[in-house]
Amino acid sequence: MPMIGTQMSTKITPRSEDFSQWYHDVISAAKLADYSPVKGCMVIRPNGYAIWERIQRELDARIKATGARNAYFPLFIPESFLKKEAEHVEGFAPECAVVTHAGGKLLEEPLVVRPTSETIINSMFAKWIQSYRDLPMMVNQWANVVRWEMRTRLFLRTTEFLWQEGHTCHSTAEEAELETRTMLQVYRKFSEDILAMPVDIGRKSDAERFAGALRTYCIEAMMQDKKALQAGTSHNLSTKFAEAFETKFLDKDSVSRHVHQTSWGVSTRLIGGVIMTHSDDKGLVLPPTLAFSHGVVIPILGKAETRERVLKAGADIVARLQEDPRAKTLGYPLQVSMDADETKQPGWKYFEYEATGNCIRIEVGPRDLDAGKLMIVRRDLGVKEAIPMESLPDVFFGMLTQMQSDLTRKAEEFKKEHTYTVASYEELKERIEQGGFFVAAWDQDPAIEQKIKQETKATIRCLPLTASYELTPHDGPALISGKTGPGVVKAIFARSY
Amino acid sequence: MPMIGTQMSTKITPRSEDFSQWYHDVISAAKLADYSPVKGCMVIRPNGYAIWERIQRELDARIKATGARNAYFPLFIPESFLKKEAEHVEGFAPECAVVTHAGGKLLEEPLVVRPTSETIINSMFAKWIQSYRDLPMMVNQWANVVRWEMRTRLFLRTTEFLWQEGHTCHSTAEEAELETRTMLQVYRKFSEDILAMPVDIGRKSDAERFAGALRTYCIEAMMQDKKALQAGTSHNLSTKFAEAFETKFLDKDSVSRHVHQTSWGVSTRLIGGVIMTHSDDKGLVLPPTLAFSHGVVIPILGKAETRERVLKAGADIVARLQEDPRAKTLGYPLQVSMDADETKQPGWKYFEYEATGNCIRIEVGPRDLDAGKLMIVRRDLGVKEAIPMESLPDVFFGMLTQMQSDLTRKAEEFKKEHTYTVASYEELKERIEQGGFFVAAWDQDPAIEQKIKQETKATIRCLPLTASYELTPHDGPALISGKTGPGVVKAIFARSY
Repeated sequence: MPMIGTQMSTKITPRSEDFSQWYHDVISAAKLADYSPVKGCMVIRPNGYAIWERIQRELDARIKATGARNAYFPLFIPESFLKKEAEHVEGFAPECAVVTHAGGKLLEEPLVVRPTSETIINSMFAKWIQSYRDLPMMVNQWANVVRWEMRTRLFLRTTEFLWQEGHTCHSTAEEAELETRTMLQVYRKFSEDILAMPVDIGRKSDAERFAGALRTYCIEAMMQDKKALQAGTSHNLSTKFAEAFETKFLDKDSVSRHVHQTSWGVSTRLIGGVIMTHSDDKGLVLPPTLAFSHGVVIPILGKAETRERVLKAGADIVARLQEDPRAKTLGYPLQVSMDADETKQPGWKYFEYEATGNCIRIEVGPRDLDAGKLMIVRRDLGVKEAIPMESLPDVFFGMLTQMQSDLTRKAEEFKKEHTYTVASYEELKERIEQGGFFVAAWDQDPAIEQKIKQETKATIRCLPLTASYELTPHDGPALISGKTGPGVVKAIFARSY
Repeated sequence: MPMIGTQMSTKITPRSEDFSQWYHDVISAAKLADYSPVKGCMVIRPNGYAIWERIQRELDARIKATGARNAYFPLFIPESFLKKEAEHVEGFAPECAVVTHAGGKLLEEPLVVRPTSETIINSMFAKWIQSYRDLPMMVNQWANVVRWEMRTRLFLRTTEFLWQEGHTCHSTAEEAELETRTMLQVYRKFSEDILAMPVDIGRKSDAERFAGALRTYCIEAMMQDKKALQAGTSHNLSTKFAEAFETKFLDKDSVSRHVHQTSWGVSTRLIGGVIMTHSDDKGLVLPPTLAFSHGVVIPILGKAETRERVLKAGADIVARLQEDPRAKTLGYPLQVSMDADETKQPGWKYFEYEATGNCIRIEVGPRDLDAGKLMIVRRDLGVKEAIPMESLPDVFFGMLTQMQSDLTRKAEEFKKEHTYTVASYEELKERIEQGGFFVAAWDQDPAIEQKIKQETKATIRCLPLTASYELTPHDGPALISGKTGPGVVKAIFARSY
C-alpha cells in the first residue's frame, strides 16, 4: 500500500492560531486516524497503528520483565458483576454500552461491553487462586474497551479505545503497594525513554481516584498548549474487589484471607500525547524510537541520462544504512526507504514526509553526485546540510541518537519552563489562563478542590510524592483556606485533556 | 506468576475413551483456557495466550511481507451497514450481539458487535480511495469478534474469539484473485512451518462459501479423531461490497470503477487445531516453534550436602543453553528454566511439565553429576536417555530441530493414512463412521451436497485445485447422481469441527 497515497494533505493550521484545529490537522495530514461512521469511535489508520505497535512492543517487554504474563478475558461483563463494587458501578455505569439482544433473542441478563476489567477478571481470580503459593498472580491484557463519551477527540477521548490493563493479586498490602509503585515507575521510564515525553508523577486526589481504588498514582505530561495529559495510572485496589468477589487465599498460617490487588493501564491516548508533545506546524514529529520512517531518500532525477545513476545512488544509500551494524543496535527496527515515484515532484514529497513524521530526509541529485555530496535534513530542525557522501552513515546514525535526546530535552525544558509556584489562589486565578502546571499548597479539603475546578477549570493533576511515596508537606498557607501545618501538601493544578 | 500453580492438574481422559473429553482435559491440565461466567465466552489463560502471541508474531511478519499494514477499525457496526450486502446480512444477522443502550440512553440505531468487518471497513475504503494510484490498498487488523453460538467449545467455537482479518482493494479482478490465492498459500505455509499442522487446500462449495464472497478458499487440517478443522479462509469478494458501499476509484482511463476486494483470516481456533494435532494422553504437545517452555531442568536435590552442587549445575545448564549461539538462530525465542521449587517432588513436576507442553526435560541429580551425566527426555517420545554432560547443548538443539520435523511428518502421515478415495455413496456411508477425509466425485449439485450432509453429517471440506487453481476434474461417476464428464469434480468429504 502506498505510504503516502494520493489524497492531498490537509493544510495545517498553525498552533498559535488554533491548537485544537492544529492537532486534528496533524492527525489528518499524517494519516494517523479518522472518525468512523460510529459516533465517537475512531479508525486507527496504518501510520497511527504503526506507532501503537511500537508502543506495544516496547511496553509489553517491560511489563513482562516485571513478571506479569499476558492473557485475555471476555469483552462482555454481566451487568450484575459491575454492581458488586459500589464505587466502581457508580463511576462506570453512566458510560456503559449495553448488549441487550444476541442471537436474535432478548438476553436474560444484559451484558456490558467492558469499560475496564476488574470485575470479570476477579471472577476468574477467585477460581484460580487457592493458596499463598499461587501468589503473586500477575496478568496483563491488551484489549479494546468502551466508555460512552459525549465529547470525543481522536486518540485522547474516544468511545472505544485500545489499551493494556494489568491486574495483580498479592498476599499482603505492602506487596500490592510496592507493585503499584513499580508499575508507576515502569510507565514513567517508558514515557521518558520511548515516548521522549517527560512526566510528573504523583498520587491522585480522592476526587480523581479510580472508581474502586484505595489509591491511584499517575503520570502527567505537559502538552505544547501547556495543558496536562494524564498518560497512565496505577491503582492500589486494596481488598475492595477481592471482597466483592470473594477472591481469597489460604495463607501460610492456614487462615483464609482476601488478596490485595492492583491494576494499571495506558492507552492509545499516548499517541495523542506524543503528537502534542513533539509535532510542529509542518506536521508530525516522532522520536526515532516510535517512528515508522527513519530515513527517506528523495532522488532528484534531473535529465534522462542521469536518472539511472541517481536511482542507483539512492538504492545504494538505502542498502548502506540498512546493512550498517548500528542499525541492529538502535533498539528499534530501522525503516529506511527511497521514494522514486516519478508522478510527484521532490518539493511535494518534502512536504509529505514532513507531515507524516519521517525523521531524516536525504536528497540526492546529479550535481550532488558529481560533487560527492548529499543533502540531509533532520525533521525537527528543518535545516538542510550538505555532507560528504562517505560520511552519511556516521551522520545519519548520529542524527537519530541526537534527535531522540534533543526531543526529550526540549520537552523537559518546556515542562520546567511552564511549571510555576503560586503562593495564593488569586495568583493561580490570574495566571491559569496562560497555561502551565501550578504548584501550590492544598489542605486536602475536597470542597476547595471542587471550588477551584469550578472557578478556574483547573484540577489537581497529581499530589507530588516524597522519596518514600508520601504526599509532600507544604509550608502553606494553603489555597483559599490559608491553613498551615500538618495536612497541607503540595499539589499540581492545571487544565487538562 | 508461578507457571504451574498449586491447582492439581486434571486427570486426562485417554483419547481412545472420549476424544472430546480428552480435549477439554488437556486444555484444563495445561491451563490454556477456561470458560468464563459469560455464556460461550472463554478466558485465554497465560499459557494459552503465549501460544497466541507466537502465532501473532510469526503470522504478522508474513502478512506484512505481502505488503499489508495493520490498522484498527471500530468494534461497533451500525445495523444498517450489515444490511447493505444481502447475502452478508443473511449469513451473519442470526449470530449478532446487539448494543441497544449506551450512556444510559436508547440508541437511535442499534449497533452490532462486529462478527467480521467487511462493512465498516468498506465505509472507510470508500472515503480513502480515489484513484488507481491509491491501489492496491491492503490492511489487516488483529481484533476480537463476536458471533453468538449455541454450542461452544474452547478455542474451536466461542462467542467471542480473537483473529486477524485482512482486507484488500485492487483495481482488477485478476489482481484480487491473485491476492486471494497468495494469502491462501501464506496460511498453508504458516500452518506447516509454524503449527507443524499440514493442511489440504481447496475451494469451498457455494454452500460453505463466506456470506458475501464470490469464492472462498480454505485450508483444512485433520485432527487426531480424523475430523476436519477449517483452519483459515481467504475470500475473493469481487465487487460485491464495493457496490454496496460505492467503493470506487478513478482508473487510468478516467473511468470510475468499483474496486475488487479480498478478505482473509485465521483465529484463536488455530490453538485448538494445534492441541488436537499434536497432544497425547499425557497432555499438551507443542512444536518448538510455538512452545512457551522449550527446556526445563528438574534438579533431584538429594541430601543437604549435595543440594547446592545440584542447584548450581542446574543453573549452569540453563545459562549454557540460553547463551549458546544456536539459541539466536532458532527463529523463536528460546525459553529454558529450572524448577527448583522444593515443595514439589520431581515426579510431580514431570507430570506437570508433560501436561503443560514443555518440549525437553532435563533431570540432574547428585549421582548423575558424579558420573558426568544427565537424563534427558523429549516430550513427544517420552523416552529417558542418559547423555554425557558436555554433549548437552548439541543434543538439546538437535532434539528441538528433530522434534519440529518429526511432529510435522507424523501429522502429515496421519492425514495421508486417513485420506481415502471412495467410488460410491454407499462406500462413503459405510466408512464415514471410522473418520477421515474422503475424496470422491461430485457433480456440483447443491442438493446432493445437502443430502450427503443430512445423511452422513459429512460436508464438503474443500474442492481440491489444479495447479492453475481450477477445480479438479474427476472421471466419475459422481456420488448419487452417477454423472460423468464436464462439471464432475473432486471433493473432499469429512465430518468437521
